[in-house]
Amino acid sequence: MKARVHVMLKDGVLDPQGEAVRHALGSLGFEGVTGVRQGKVLDLDLEDTDVEAARARLGDMCEKLLANTVIERYDIEIG
Amino acid sequence: MKARVHVMLKDGVLDPQGEAVRHALGSLGFEGVTGVRQGKVLDLDLEDTDVEAARARLGDMCEKLLANTVIERYDIEIG
Repeated sequence: MKARVHVMLKDGVLDPQGEAVRHALGSLGFEGVTGVRQGKVLDLDLEDTDVEAARARLGDMCEKLLANTVIERYDIEIG
Repeated sequence: MKARVHVMLKDGVLDPQGEAVRHALGSLGFEGVTGVRQGKVLDLDLEDTDVEAARARLGDMCEKLLANTVIERYDIEIG
């Protein structure tokens, strides 16, 4: 089973990396980019066969390792 | 207009970061994770109103700044 997890900084948390990208795009002449937020994406191959069990396990993985839930939120897509 | 860009290492390019995550998940007791690939995701706010023009401009941004197309591929979602 394939799963994709997005980990993004929560709204309101300063994102200097995204801000740097926005600024660099402006410098390259790309006008009208009013905001950029950068996060990470993880594509996982799992041996799980039960979607709901996999989703629960992925939630655990995010809480324990993949995301810093103080400042980051995650979302899980399966399949 | 909102757009999301994923930038991932191409298949066949070694992904040490993903491999480190896979290994760490195993160490934490998460069995059955057979592969992890890590990439970046960028959420952009654009002033564009024409979807096709925005898509072309985002392609340009990826080629020029967001992705290293020698080793990375990108995909663009709009809306």
